[in-house]
Amino acid sequence: MAPKRRLLTPGPTSVPPEVLAALAEPVLHHRAPDFKVVFTRLLERLRTVYRTENELLLLTASGTGAFESAVANLLSPGDRVLVGTWGEFGERWATLAGAYGCEVETLAYEWGETPSAGDLAQRLDETGAQTVLLVHSETSTGVVADLEAMAAVCREAGALAVVDAVSSLGAVPLETDAWGLDVVVTGSQKALMCPPGLAVVSISERAREQARGSTSPRYYWDWERQLAAQAQGSTPSTPAVSTVVALDVALGLLLDEGLESVFARHVALGRACRAGVKAMGLELYSPDDDRSAVLTAVLTPEGSDAVALRLALRDRHGITIAGGHGAIADRLFRIGHIGWVDVFDIAAALAAVELELTEAGVEIERGVAVAATLDAYETTVRA
Amino acid sequence: MAPKRRLLTPGPTSVPPEVLAALAEPVLHHRAPDFKVVFTRLLERLRTVYRTENELLLLTASGTGAFESAVANLLSPGDRVLVGTWGEFGERWATLAGAYGCEVETLAYEWGETPSAGDLAQRLDETGAQTVLLVHSETSTGVVADLEAMAAVCREAGALAVVDAVSSLGAVPLETDAWGLDVVVTGSQKALMCPPGLAVVSISERAREQARGSTSPRYYWDWERQLAAQAQGSTPSTPAVSTVVALDVALGLLLDEGLESVFARHVALGRACRAGVKAMGLELYSPDDDRSAVLTAVLTPEGSDAVALRLALRDRHGITIAGGHGAIADRLFRIGHIGWVDVFDIAAALAAVELELTEAGVEIERGVAVAATLDAYETTVRA
Repeated sequence: MAPKRRLLTPGPTSVPPEVLAALAEPVLHHRAPDFKVVFTRLLERLRTVYRTENELLLLTASGTGAFESAVANLLSPGDRVLVGTWGEFGERWATLAGAYGCEVETLAYEWGETPSAGDLAQRLDETGAQTVLLVHSETSTGVVADLEAMAAVCREAGALAVVDAVSSLGAVPLETDAWGLDVVVTGSQKALMCPPGLAVVSISERAREQARGSTSPRYYWDWERQLAAQAQGSTPSTPAVSTVVALDVALGLLLDEGLESVFARHVALGRACRAGVKAMGLELYSPDDDRSAVLTAVLTPEGSDAVALRLALRDRHGITIAGGHGAIADRLFRIGHIGWVDVFDIAAALAAVELELTEAGVEIERGVAVAATLDAYETTVRA
Repeated sequence: MAPKRRLLTPGPTSVPPEVLAALAEPVLHHRAPDFKVVFTRLLERLRTVYRTENELLLLTASGTGAFESAVANLLSPGDRVLVGTWGEFGERWATLAGAYGCEVETLAYEWGETPSAGDLAQRLDETGAQTVLLVHSETSTGVVADLEAMAAVCREAGALAVVDAVSSLGAVPLETDAWGLDVVVTGSQKALMCPPGLAVVSISERAREQARGSTSPRYYWDWERQLAAQAQGSTPSTPAVSTVVALDVALGLLLDEGLESVFARHVALGRACRAGVKAMGLELYSPDDDRSAVLTAVLTPEGSDAVALRLALRDRHGITIAGGHGAIADRLFRIGHIGWVDVFDIAAALAAVELELTEAGVEIERGVAVAATLDAYETTVRA
């Protein structure tokens, strides 16, 4: 039989067939009116998902590129910037800001820790930074920060809040306008259920004003150049047109489901996944709370190799999950709940984990993972 | 009937069904071994098309982004750079280099003129520039420069040759190594017959060496960071995986046809298109030579509106061609010969041009465009 494959990483994620079919449509020209219709509708749909009336930019790049656009537009060499680091992506943004000659201060935690708004207030006070780079969902650890509280602290200090929402937007609540988020960056390939290749940036008036004063060199990332082209219904250089068409279809699916239902779905999948993990007696690395509903990060038992487990899932069962980074790479695996994934996919992944760990000598009662996963899901959705 | 559509712009171009089908395959993870196989094969195929053993980088961006990577990696603020400008893209690169604080000198021509290696030698001598930015195929005018001769002049002067080959690579001969081209940039959406979203950069050892000394800030565009990730079989941030898979299929088709056959096809299509245009008594704006085989740019008769013609082709006949820029925008239209386009598509486009111009009162003998187009094509391919 043709092997069935299941993609359960926290991005790129599994994409619905309607979205794949849209990718295969004949190529549109990016200056033609049929493209403008799609492009304009996509920006409106993105605005709905972002919960914002701010300007939105669509960039042909991965999320990292769009985040770089925030640094290149907002900051000048020598500017002091405060970067929250509690995982791989926060550390990446600190490196990026350093590459632009900024004076980088950090609000630093160990990987896997959850940041607090109180600590942020203190660091803002100590550093006097006027720009703060924050990661909403730290994909490397599974931690989703209390962004509403942290943004309030930024606002109070008069600092710009610049947010990496690459894996959170469309999975967990994010209120760009209500929470006062100045810049929010996301990518097409996570909760938005589309292949990678497009990234989005929202920009508040205050951020746009600050960008006018930045001296960092930029052309492809230049916000004003992009906004001028978008005002004409297109982009300054050729965008990934096929992915634009696909992302429009994907957002249509999300909005048909309704954002509140989408968030509830991720909470239910997160609870289900954590229940299955705990039933096997495994240790959660990501927080055991409903806010962290993007992915579940798990530690294998001491002495049990997470890399070998991941390879076995892939090669024996066609299931792709993500590994870990850094010092605990050999004990960490991550299961994404975002994209086109349902509870039976998660049950399949955990069933395979159970089989393989048992095979490797870990004592787990046969069947507990699937039973606990489905139980927790049913309990949540019936509540 | 469902309308038939023909895309005959010089990018994005029409894409073969095999490539569209590849786009619709389930998403791969960019760190998984099945992706590495495709990615590695794609880089090898690109090297064959580039005729190079240099390092190749695959960026998720449009061609403009990849060209910016050349400026950001090779140049520092205050560096003198010589930019050849004879159309829109040369002027874009001058603006881009200016945005990075370079001292920009130009080898400037009127739009539509063909540059000469002799003029380049003189400007290099006058300016002492160590880096030269050149456009191989100027998509805005149809001019394909004599890149071999211009690169030889750069080599003699000890200057780096940085080439925009976005619309030329895979359409007309380009010899990265034999001609000594230090940096060559292309995009997925032109002659390579794939949707937009990926760009490629080749880098000579000399260019890589110069990049080590550049102080321009960069992260997403940083060549060394990209090369380090590619050495592990992937990219530093999530690439447009579906477009990677599609581009691999598209290059397979090109290489099955054989590069020499591909170049001959473009020459034959160019001759055919120009013959049809001339048979209608229209004036060619692009050069009437076999080197300029990427697109044909045409002036409508005095008083005949090219914009209205273009709209009629699109709305009445489902045929998308490109318009012109600048002062002659109302008299210029451009027909691309690149991508998945055959002589009957070109004949259809010119037949529609003939119909619409006749309708608008221009005197053209009915049928000359198609007859001359097919005649010229047959004569070429039977020769």
